[in-house]
Amino acid sequence: MDAHERTLIDRYWRAANYLSVGQIYLLDNPLLKEPLRPEHVKPRLLGHWGTTPGLNFIYAHLNRIIKARDADIIYICGPGHGGPGMVANTYLEGTYSEIYPAIARDEAGIKKLFHQFSFPGGIPSHAAPETPGSIHEGGELGYALVHAYGAAFDNPELVVACVIGDGEAETGPLATSWHSNKFLNPARDGVVLPILHLNGYKIANPTVLARLGDEELVHLFTGYGYEPFFVEGSDPTLMHDKMAETLDTIFDRIAAIKLAAEAEPGERPRWPMIVLRSPKGWTGPKVVDGKIVEGSWRSHQVPVANCRQDEGHRKILEDWMRSYDPADLFDETGDLKPELKALAPEGTRRMGANPHANGGLLRHELKRPDFRDYAVTVATPGGAEEQSTKILGDYLRDIIRLDATARSFRIFGPDETNSNRLNSVFEATDRVWMAETIPGDDHLSPDGRVMEVLSEHLCQGWLEGYLLTGRHGFFSCYEAFIHIVDSMFNQHAKWLKSSRDLAWRKPISSLNYLLTSHVWRQDHNGFSHQDPGFVDLVANKTADVVRVYFPPDANTLLWVGDHCLATWNRINVIVAGKQPAPQWLGMDEAIRHCEAGLGIWDWAGTEEDGLEPDLVMACAGDVPTLETLAAVELLREAFPQLRIRVVNVVDLMALQSPGQHPHGISDPLFDSLFSTDRPVIFAYHGYPYLIHRLVYKRRNHPNFHVRGFIEQGTTTTPFDMTVMNQLDRYHLAIEAVSRLPRLHAKAGPFIKRLEAKLDEHHHYVREHGEDMPEISQWKFSPAARPSAPV
Amino acid sequence: MDAHERTLIDRYWRAANYLSVGQIYLLDNPLLKEPLRPEHVKPRLLGHWGTTPGLNFIYAHLNRIIKARDADIIYICGPGHGGPGMVANTYLEGTYSEIYPAIARDEAGIKKLFHQFSFPGGIPSHAAPETPGSIHEGGELGYALVHAYGAAFDNPELVVACVIGDGEAETGPLATSWHSNKFLNPARDGVVLPILHLNGYKIANPTVLARLGDEELVHLFTGYGYEPFFVEGSDPTLMHDKMAETLDTIFDRIAAIKLAAEAEPGERPRWPMIVLRSPKGWTGPKVVDGKIVEGSWRSHQVPVANCRQDEGHRKILEDWMRSYDPADLFDETGDLKPELKALAPEGTRRMGANPHANGGLLRHELKRPDFRDYAVTVATPGGAEEQSTKILGDYLRDIIRLDATARSFRIFGPDETNSNRLNSVFEATDRVWMAETIPGDDHLSPDGRVMEVLSEHLCQGWLEGYLLTGRHGFFSCYEAFIHIVDSMFNQHAKWLKSSRDLAWRKPISSLNYLLTSHVWRQDHNGFSHQDPGFVDLVANKTADVVRVYFPPDANTLLWVGDHCLATWNRINVIVAGKQPAPQWLGMDEAIRHCEAGLGIWDWAGTEEDGLEPDLVMACAGDVPTLETLAAVELLREAFPQLRIRVVNVVDLMALQSPGQHPHGISDPLFDSLFSTDRPVIFAYHGYPYLIHRLVYKRRNHPNFHVRGFIEQGTTTTPFDMTVMNQLDRYHLAIEAVSRLPRLHAKAGPFIKRLEAKLDEHHHYVREHGEDMPEISQWKFSPAARPSAPV
Repeated sequence: MDAHERTLIDRYWRAANYLSVGQIYLLDNPLLKEPLRPEHVKPRLLGHWGTTPGLNFIYAHLNRIIKARDADIIYICGPGHGGPGMVANTYLEGTYSEIYPAIARDEAGIKKLFHQFSFPGGIPSHAAPETPGSIHEGGELGYALVHAYGAAFDNPELVVACVIGDGEAETGPLATSWHSNKFLNPARDGVVLPILHLNGYKIANPTVLARLGDEELVHLFTGYGYEPFFVEGSDPTLMHDKMAETLDTIFDRIAAIKLAAEAEPGERPRWPMIVLRSPKGWTGPKVVDGKIVEGSWRSHQVPVANCRQDEGHRKILEDWMRSYDPADLFDETGDLKPELKALAPEGTRRMGANPHANGGLLRHELKRPDFRDYAVTVATPGGAEEQSTKILGDYLRDIIRLDATARSFRIFGPDETNSNRLNSVFEATDRVWMAETIPGDDHLSPDGRVMEVLSEHLCQGWLEGYLLTGRHGFFSCYEAFIHIVDSMFNQHAKWLKSSRDLAWRKPISSLNYLLTSHVWRQDHNGFSHQDPGFVDLVANKTADVVRVYFPPDANTLLWVGDHCLATWNRINVIVAGKQPAPQWLGMDEAIRHCEAGLGIWDWAGTEEDGLEPDLVMACAGDVPTLETLAAVELLREAFPQLRIRVVNVVDLMALQSPGQHPHGISDPLFDSLFSTDRPVIFAYHGYPYLIHRLVYKRRNHPNFHVRGFIEQGTTTTPFDMTVMNQLDRYHLAIEAVSRLPRLHAKAGPFIKRLEAKLDEHHHYVREHGEDMPEISQWKFSPAARPSAPV
Repeated sequence: MDAHERTLIDRYWRAANYLSVGQIYLLDNPLLKEPLRPEHVKPRLLGHWGTTPGLNFIYAHLNRIIKARDADIIYICGPGHGGPGMVANTYLEGTYSEIYPAIARDEAGIKKLFHQFSFPGGIPSHAAPETPGSIHEGGELGYALVHAYGAAFDNPELVVACVIGDGEAETGPLATSWHSNKFLNPARDGVVLPILHLNGYKIANPTVLARLGDEELVHLFTGYGYEPFFVEGSDPTLMHDKMAETLDTIFDRIAAIKLAAEAEPGERPRWPMIVLRSPKGWTGPKVVDGKIVEGSWRSHQVPVANCRQDEGHRKILEDWMRSYDPADLFDETGDLKPELKALAPEGTRRMGANPHANGGLLRHELKRPDFRDYAVTVATPGGAEEQSTKILGDYLRDIIRLDATARSFRIFGPDETNSNRLNSVFEATDRVWMAETIPGDDHLSPDGRVMEVLSEHLCQGWLEGYLLTGRHGFFSCYEAFIHIVDSMFNQHAKWLKSSRDLAWRKPISSLNYLLTSHVWRQDHNGFSHQDPGFVDLVANKTADVVRVYFPPDANTLLWVGDHCLATWNRINVIVAGKQPAPQWLGMDEAIRHCEAGLGIWDWAGTEEDGLEPDLVMACAGDVPTLETLAAVELLREAFPQLRIRVVNVVDLMALQSPGQHPHGISDPLFDSLFSTDRPVIFAYHGYPYLIHRLVYKRRNHPNFHVRGFIEQGTTTTPFDMTVMNQLDRYHLAIEAVSRLPRLHAKAGPFIKRLEAKLDEHHHYVREHGEDMPEISQWKFSPAARPSAPV
């Protein structure tokens, strides 16, 4: 880089810094054409300077390398607090004004740019969905690198430059994200270029990595499989040279790795990375009120705070902003000077306009086979037995086959694809694996499309990055451990909610969870593996974004799985078991049932046409459905005159009203299913309170008696688990009759008999270690009624 | 180690392996005195062999070093599936039979030991609360090392041997836990000895670390700040020698580090660690059905499955068990042979009997100052303004002072102690920091008692380990990001629930969360930082274990904080703001209010003695309380005749019935507070559905109208946040009058006026970027009534 280019880049950097400070501080006088007055300063100063100059520095140098090599680069900004920098740079390159024309490239536009930042009705302080070029909201910290890898998979031409804050680097998810390079195939995937930004401080503390010394750092990143390049210092001139030189070296290295990968596919390269050690709050005020600010944690937010009231502080701010020499950067009208404009890449090579960062632009429909081709034949309800997730695995296998050319679909899971019985997918593909292999390894390959690692954080983060760049995916997970990514789910739901309001952000594919190995069938793992509460968290999120399904058998699971994979901008949660279980619905019936979301299972109940039922037995979830049907059988035998209605719920959100959720059903429909005054015994898969929360506005709510998981668990038999939580057939039947006063006289002996059964079970299971044959071999017998449809 | 000792250790190891296999497989014939018949084998084989022989190997060698050096060691078993090994070893050393006398040291005892494992009514398959010597349930994976560090802090004589599975090592929390050594002071704290058990495979995949090669591994762990010692191989003779030699070296190294720390305190040493590379399923069946089992993922669970039905499989099992030569290990009666018994340490040096692993044995009451000494003077309700958490910080500072000798209390937080306004604690102590320091660093010291790191996982895990070994602690966290540890919270709640049923496990101090920087005051962070849903998760857990408090001001926060620190075996969640806010209750009033959990605020309402109120305005949380009181003022002015009752809720669980939660109030009391038929406008801090879920069984529930966070957020002013979620005074007042039909005629103009106010606010805030003065300067004026108590 010659001196001329260096000067230009430095000016560009100063322009970005100037606009960043302006966003944090100014309401008016955007080009400092007049002396700074109190009313030019925002009354509430809300923003973060500390990390911003480093982010701007990186942006300017990435622009240079994009232009020099026509590189295809997106920028992931780990330090969420770098929002002003991302906004400033996308404004400088022109993207911002194209997307938000009101923020024009003139003085009035800059004024609006400043005004809107962290201001009511304006834009958030972080890189966020509102920020062009971003696929990453850095607010929570920890997911920059895993998002970067997700973006790079199957994007062979793409370089994902990922800035990682040294605060963020202390988080667990980030610490394990470094190992993602064992899953990145240089021949097929893009490149992730991690840039660890060591600016030394968090909010009030130094960072761990900044205080290791370079020797330990080199060991650490070598151990993680990288080749670290250090760019360290504070003198802008020297730093520009070092950064440019380093990026040149690194991009040469990347080209060589790519070439080598063609020659020797399957070798894991040592990927280059950058350690950028620059002062926190670089180029900002050195000292305020006698305290060091630049290079210290004091520059984390607003380095000088009292600028509206305190003349001295205001002077510091004004001097600071003028140190960037705005007149040297912008012309009279406020437009960036042409020689600086020329530094930005053009069109979609601008990082703010790169379509990979607005993945919906690149998204194509996923090719799906006809899910009906995988239907389980169900001659009579309960007449077939299948592992629901295994059937879904067949369908997923063929998606992978249909996607062979597009390479736009992956399956993610924490080492559980086999355990969750999706193993058919290995007929079509392998697990991705770039580390060593040895004889005997099972379906490992650099080209696999199944991503397995024992980290729910990595699975979730990779998938998010993959979806946000326009692809499709599926995450299967043990139900209890999906809580590990509660917070990532929250943030993705927030991202989707905010994105929906931005017309320029095109819809991305939904994030689909299959929660299996669920609470009721953790036979060999026990209490630590038993928690169905993720759905409760999901139900808190914006109704437009979330869907929850409890398909009771394989054919309904096929419909639900296929449906979810066709949707966009949602988070779909599917809860379904992996164990052999009775199949209830033929495919046509399953389609009708799932389209409705919930419905009466005629063939399971004992209603008589034209008469109100005495009782509604409702169920959601495969195990509760089984126990409900068994309870109905007990009731049917004991009380042949009893009119029992069975309602099965697949789409949990249908229980809400249409005002609460788009899938919610109307009050008249709800009443027609659940009656307005009959007892409803509701067997639910998860914590029972959720059902109350969903239906408390309904007329018949006082008669809802919900059973579910009440935090009783251990290593025991499947049926014993239901007994411990009083969700078993006996408890359900007892509850039912005790809610029917008119049975009173006959109820006593029946209840006694079932209590004896419970007692018998208790002893049997503790003696034999397995369920009584009458339980484990129980088969549903349809009542001798004309209309058992399949 | 001479050949004789090696032979003894090998026999001890074989005994542990034998007992481990027996637990997984056998119902009877425990000493194989007769040929193995089908009925001797459990019908359901539920257990994990793969990791167990390695765990047993380590246990035997730790026993040796304990005896050789009188070392004080506890064993943390990261691989949760190693349950059979931990049980076998605590049985061999005698601890198990002391705690569970029915499992005696004879043949009948061994039979019971085998029978109970993973059996209904028996014990879980993991190391769990039921396992002597364990402070760690490994079911979820990822927290072994962070628990180990928590246990080591302030335990200078203790060595925490921590076995980390290579599967677990892929998780985020584990990956960042290695850096805990930057927070461990060799002069004051104990030692953590990580033993990375590279047995190569997870459920169905190789592990990442096992496939790096030793060179990258050495870099990685050197970078993490350790000196790795490799013990690799499969030949038991060689491996015993290597392991013994390595442990001797390491314990010499530890002694030297300890000595050096006295000479040169503050230097961070390179701590030794072990990389144990041994075959998965070591000593188990080599081949089953033509497939390699030992040394492969196929040995993860039961290496040979069909032993009851298949004679060939049963033969493999029998040969396998006989390969350990039980007659060489146990005498005729089933007692361990005396020369092997002599290998175990004695008394509390046995790892199963070490009191650190049953921390309640060592726990002393925390010395607390009188919280009333920190009371804020409140002359009239709303007449004082304070930052509630700052006042609590004063109290915590003095706890640290009182604890100076005991060294049994620490404060944990992700870099937020200052941000959360607890900074008074730095008058008494520093932040722990063992990495480099430089001039200008703020309150960093090797002796600090505040632990700050940007990882909620580390904060939570350290605190858990610290509490489980009998100490006290306090975790302050941004409310939204506590979701990061949802799953760890779940697991700790499960641990506490299970522990409560074990008389021998003595109570440990409660885990106390202060959730601050909460949803309503994330002015400069915005939507990603706004999520009050942790409480919803908490409410799912066993009622005996969880408590949730919403103190509305500083004096109530003092009561709540002090109360929580005195409790045991619980998880207490306190939600309180850090911003300057009006103070409502004098200390005596605060005490009465908190002891009741909830109550009527006379001075805030407009009730008349002896008459039913027209309306109940309820509130929980500081911001909702403020908005409620402001709403009451609006109503009071407009409708002087209206009888309004104000109910404030501090203890959220009090809303439930006594049957649901120990703090729940009776129906008559509930009715006396909330009436049976008046509208209740409930302003709640979090997601409104939770209130419905808690009160749906109450008579007046149909009249509850709850407002809370409905997932509307951004970077904006505090009041605008409440408006976005319709929790502000105007919306509350409008809701109130619209629920009172008799006001109908007068309500119209009132509502119009408030809607105009909302409109005015909307424009003002978007123009000025701050709240209208009438909002930001609003002060509560007590009604001119005789009895405004303080």
